[in-house]
Amino acid sequence: MSQRVYNFGAGPAMLPTEVMEEVQQEMLDYQGHGASIIEISHRAPPFLEILEETESIFRRLTGLGSSHVMFFMHGGAQMQFSAVPLNLMARKEKRSAVYLITGKWGVLAEEEARKFGSTRVALDGKPLGFQKIPEWEEVLDPETSYVHLTSNNTLYGTQWQEYPDTGKVPLVSDSTSDILSRKEDYSRFGLVYAGLQKNLGPSGLALVLVREDLLGLALPQTPKLLDYQLAHEQRSLANTTSVFSIYVTLKMLRWVEKQGGVAVMEQRNREKSKLLYDVLDDSELYKAVADPENRSICNVTFRLDDDEMEKRFLKQSLNEGLYALKGHRDVGGIRASIYNSMPLEGVKALADFMKDFERRET
Amino acid sequence: MSQRVYNFGAGPAMLPTEVMEEVQQEMLDYQGHGASIIEISHRAPPFLEILEETESIFRRLTGLGSSHVMFFMHGGAQMQFSAVPLNLMARKEKRSAVYLITGKWGVLAEEEARKFGSTRVALDGKPLGFQKIPEWEEVLDPETSYVHLTSNNTLYGTQWQEYPDTGKVPLVSDSTSDILSRKEDYSRFGLVYAGLQKNLGPSGLALVLVREDLLGLALPQTPKLLDYQLAHEQRSLANTTSVFSIYVTLKMLRWVEKQGGVAVMEQRNREKSKLLYDVLDDSELYKAVADPENRSICNVTFRLDDDEMEKRFLKQSLNEGLYALKGHRDVGGIRASIYNSMPLEGVKALADFMKDFERRET
Repeated sequence: MSQRVYNFGAGPAMLPTEVMEEVQQEMLDYQGHGASIIEISHRAPPFLEILEETESIFRRLTGLGSSHVMFFMHGGAQMQFSAVPLNLMARKEKRSAVYLITGKWGVLAEEEARKFGSTRVALDGKPLGFQKIPEWEEVLDPETSYVHLTSNNTLYGTQWQEYPDTGKVPLVSDSTSDILSRKEDYSRFGLVYAGLQKNLGPSGLALVLVREDLLGLALPQTPKLLDYQLAHEQRSLANTTSVFSIYVTLKMLRWVEKQGGVAVMEQRNREKSKLLYDVLDDSELYKAVADPENRSICNVTFRLDDDEMEKRFLKQSLNEGLYALKGHRDVGGIRASIYNSMPLEGVKALADFMKDFERRET
Repeated sequence: MSQRVYNFGAGPAMLPTEVMEEVQQEMLDYQGHGASIIEISHRAPPFLEILEETESIFRRLTGLGSSHVMFFMHGGAQMQFSAVPLNLMARKEKRSAVYLITGKWGVLAEEEARKFGSTRVALDGKPLGFQKIPEWEEVLDPETSYVHLTSNNTLYGTQWQEYPDTGKVPLVSDSTSDILSRKEDYSRFGLVYAGLQKNLGPSGLALVLVREDLLGLALPQTPKLLDYQLAHEQRSLANTTSVFSIYVTLKMLRWVEKQGGVAVMEQRNREKSKLLYDVLDDSELYKAVADPENRSICNVTFRLDDDEMEKRFLKQSLNEGLYALKGHRDVGGIRASIYNSMPLEGVKALADFMKDFERRET
């Protein structure tokens, strides 16, 4: 086997080698069943046990209680851009939702929601190039169906540090890129969703947490598999779910627990990101993209002087086994995604490379 | 490693051991990239190459030409129960579709379609307990948006032998359980969809083939990720797809090609199913469920005298390494799913067991 690289891709993202090794070992024969988990019915006990343990570990890791139900839904976070308005718009007769837009995913979420009700953009980071999350405080119309935000903005490397108070209006968070990366009281949200492929497992599904009183409100035109009430009643099995995605997610959650839980993850993520931000702040060459007050502990973004220099940086980093550092195609520059699975050693290697590169090239 | 069993489950179904071994080998390091394919961006060349080869092998295997586009969509066949009417109802102003119902999946497809237009059940096998596919011939109202059928009915083991002529009205087929199991001119359909987890690969996605003139007709309330036009334009990557599902599907398609293609698959499936039907027809104990004229080459279903006897059959078969023969929970009885991946030896073992069991128990 060749060496595994340090993979800084934003998602589908790297998974811990221990997790991948377990998946590999069980690929032909899951726990003596004589078949892979992907070859077994999603309604058979081996998979039902996986589903159940996944939920109980997630609840243990986050302290989420019975106020919220939890299930998986097909399609990742972007399917939730449709599912959220389909399920929540009808909470109030006006069918009107507020969107706080701090990056590309927020833009797309709001655009999609317009199909199913009216929307109002109450905060828009676009004029600031999404490098900063503007302050936001507002007395909300209580007839607002919900308020939507994106907790962490992968493209720009910004992250909400403190969530706004929306009173009785449910707050909805797209937490795809920072779920389980820091301690969070998810029960304060009406709804939380997260595509799996960054902090949880392989792509294909979203994890959805819904406060119980928000179930059963789906619009009549909601496609069956996007109906939260049904997904909850059927415990993620309204149809054949992506068995492999949940199977690997369970292993990932066990791994997080074994490492010491979310508090330990947060501490490591703070340490990892600080290593990189310190390099940026000490540098003449690198320019941090995100405003210091909104810096993400999951994605660290920066620019170099020009395209030429960035290309050189990317080429040389790849030679050092530092993989997928190229920024998102819409933004350019450099992005290091350092989710839970990225070990401290990987980030140290990157920080060292960055310092070397600057010494060498300037 | 323990012995791999013969897995007769209806889906997620068994995959060839060769395919599973390749997946296992590459799990930590896909072709020297130092990362698994599930850890790599869906927009990076390694995955784009997979996507492209998947399409070209599928087209080569089926002879499908440029009349139809092909893409993958999240959610399996049941998501298509919504996507089909969302995309095709507006083809005609009346927004009216015809459903030919030959089993449980047809029932559910029709129910879902009512959300998005009007439907008419023109053929209903229910009074016959779905054991037979009734004759159907009708001069269709040309203002019909489409006609929908299910090509193979997993629960009852029936299969359309000859598809009806719907003239200029597009015929839509849910081909989940028999795609690539027999030679088929898919270009005769307006639309074909198939959840992957029976004949193609792991669960999570549907393969969709759409005749080009049926693109771009989606209703305004179509969730973005269910819009065929967008899925086509974005070549299955309107968002992060289920990378693993497509990756394994490619290996499965390569395997089919290596075996000699769909004609060879069909020949083997006919041979395998005949082995079992011969046992049924020679038996005093076993009662075939499906009418001889509609027998499926993918799922062979039968009953024994009573529940007690069926339980004994299932218990003893399991001891022989013949796995997951229990019929669908809605139907009961015994079901042997013998998709492309099931080797002849597995079916022979089952046929032998059935004969032994009858000798022993009667």
